[in-house]
Amino acid sequence: MKKNVLVLLPVEARHKEKLEAAGAGCCFVYSDPDTVTEEQIRAANIILGLPKADMLKASENLEWLQLASAGTDPYIVPGVLHPKTLLTNATGAYSKAVAEHAFALTLMLTKKLHLYRDEQRSRRWSDHGAVSSLSDSTVAVVGLGDIGRAYARLVKAMGAYVIGVKRRGGNCPEYADELVLTQDLDSVLPRADVVMSILPNTAATRYIYTDRSFDGMKDSAVFINCGRGNAVSAEVLYRALSAHKIAAAGVDVTEEEPLPADSPLWGLENLVITPHISGGFHLPETFERIVDIAAGNLAAFLAGGELRSVVDFTTGYAR
Amino acid sequence: MKKNVLVLLPVEARHKEKLEAAGAGCCFVYSDPDTVTEEQIRAANIILGLPKADMLKASENLEWLQLASAGTDPYIVPGVLHPKTLLTNATGAYSKAVAEHAFALTLMLTKKLHLYRDEQRSRRWSDHGAVSSLSDSTVAVVGLGDIGRAYARLVKAMGAYVIGVKRRGGNCPEYADELVLTQDLDSVLPRADVVMSILPNTAATRYIYTDRSFDGMKDSAVFINCGRGNAVSAEVLYRALSAHKIAAAGVDVTEEEPLPADSPLWGLENLVITPHISGGFHLPETFERIVDIAAGNLAAFLAGGELRSVVDFTTGYAR
Repeated sequence: MKKNVLVLLPVEARHKEKLEAAGAGCCFVYSDPDTVTEEQIRAANIILGLPKADMLKASENLEWLQLASAGTDPYIVPGVLHPKTLLTNATGAYSKAVAEHAFALTLMLTKKLHLYRDEQRSRRWSDHGAVSSLSDSTVAVVGLGDIGRAYARLVKAMGAYVIGVKRRGGNCPEYADELVLTQDLDSVLPRADVVMSILPNTAATRYIYTDRSFDGMKDSAVFINCGRGNAVSAEVLYRALSAHKIAAAGVDVTEEEPLPADSPLWGLENLVITPHISGGFHLPETFERIVDIAAGNLAAFLAGGELRSVVDFTTGYAR
Repeated sequence: MKKNVLVLLPVEARHKEKLEAAGAGCCFVYSDPDTVTEEQIRAANIILGLPKADMLKASENLEWLQLASAGTDPYIVPGVLHPKTLLTNATGAYSKAVAEHAFALTLMLTKKLHLYRDEQRSRRWSDHGAVSSLSDSTVAVVGLGDIGRAYARLVKAMGAYVIGVKRRGGNCPEYADELVLTQDLDSVLPRADVVMSILPNTAATRYIYTDRSFDGMKDSAVFINCGRGNAVSAEVLYRALSAHKIAAAGVDVTEEEPLPADSPLWGLENLVITPHISGGFHLPETFERIVDIAAGNLAAFLAGGELRSVVDFTTGYAR
């Protein structure tokens, strides 16, 4: 029987061609998460994209869901997907976009460009003193998925000493100078000039940074979070920055998103906030990569082969 | 006869040790540009640092002036130094500091972090759309002195295609993909996604960027100037940015410095201004490098050897 493939991605003609070549013989329906109907979802054997989780209703027809995101949170909640539905994510597609965004935030903060931007608005030609160089810095990269690895390569190319922090041990890869287990995070934080956190949202990473974490950091340290906002609560982050326990932070994610207009975080001079835009499709290459991943997996699925980035429901990570 | 060495640098004990070891047998006097007396200047055979040009009065006693800057403008004006006085600059000392600052500005603008900083002040969680990656960009580095070279290496490490623009031809070095002569600058500008200008202040570079230069650039281009402010007049820069002939600019230098509070440049959303702080002693390593250059040249001078970075008065460059 022909498989029904529901594509919920903003595809152009050349993307359709690529997908339909990979899924020859399938019946393709194109829509988007906002206008797709429950009937279309129910009829689909395969979905490519990001359907609203509450529309999936554990459909028995759905054999495979290919996400367009790296994050999997809404889909691993019991009852969203049927137990036999295969889930794959788009790990890898966002590595360049998010790593470069985190890198840009790191340089902005270490060179104090956020303070100069503020001065500019007051028309003040005013010197903010010493800056640091990544070439003299120790950078802890907390989370060594594809984004963490890409970021590690960028800071290492500028001469940083890189400490990779990951769940499981192993040999030290070429993009790090040292590997430490996540369980020993507290021993790494006091050594770091930059802490870049790129953890997914799991039970183990929720609120992993506490008041004590920031107490232990250098007062000159810069903290970057481009993973998930709930790695640190808004209160903990606010206390650390307002008390100058660290020098500055840059976050693309916050505990609550959008960050409420009355959050005291907005007003912190030493915090730079971007509205969860490091990923998405803001870098054109990201979407091309997602279509490539989806097409590759579609061909493999139809041929009964192995799929890339199958999500383990117990951890939320690709296996 | 003992040489009188006047040191106008903010030295600490270890720097004094280094200089006095290099200048064994000399008579050292330590002061700073603001409190040094005319008598001390007149008595000096050697000055290390940045005396005020109008205090030098072409002193006949002054055999050698080692600048702490790369720029030489005030000292090559006729009548400031005696014709027999040797002038050396600190080319090389600032390369890391300035190149990294220019690199940070480049990333800030290409990732739109200046716009997100502005939004933050209005407590707005607001998406500014597509960004670009240096890995898909052509970067023109205009001026291939030590700073230009260091910047070229940084952008090349991120995957940029680098066009080096310099006065004289030669083989294409490893940090560039292509070399073009400064006289052909107009042919390069339309191809560049990023134009990074790091030219010294000479008759040939003054107002080198005109309305026509910006007319020829991509409307998505980013312009960076960390060289001298008069490479582009405030009016030309304002016209280019307010008419969105290019996407954005980041400048550490302006035609008039400090930039007057009533300059319309301050108010441009698509311009980031830093107050000529990329060099100076803002990166601690810079000052260490300057002391090393001064100590090395002092030993060479006393031994009758060749000095590093002797300035050619006709060009203002180190020979």
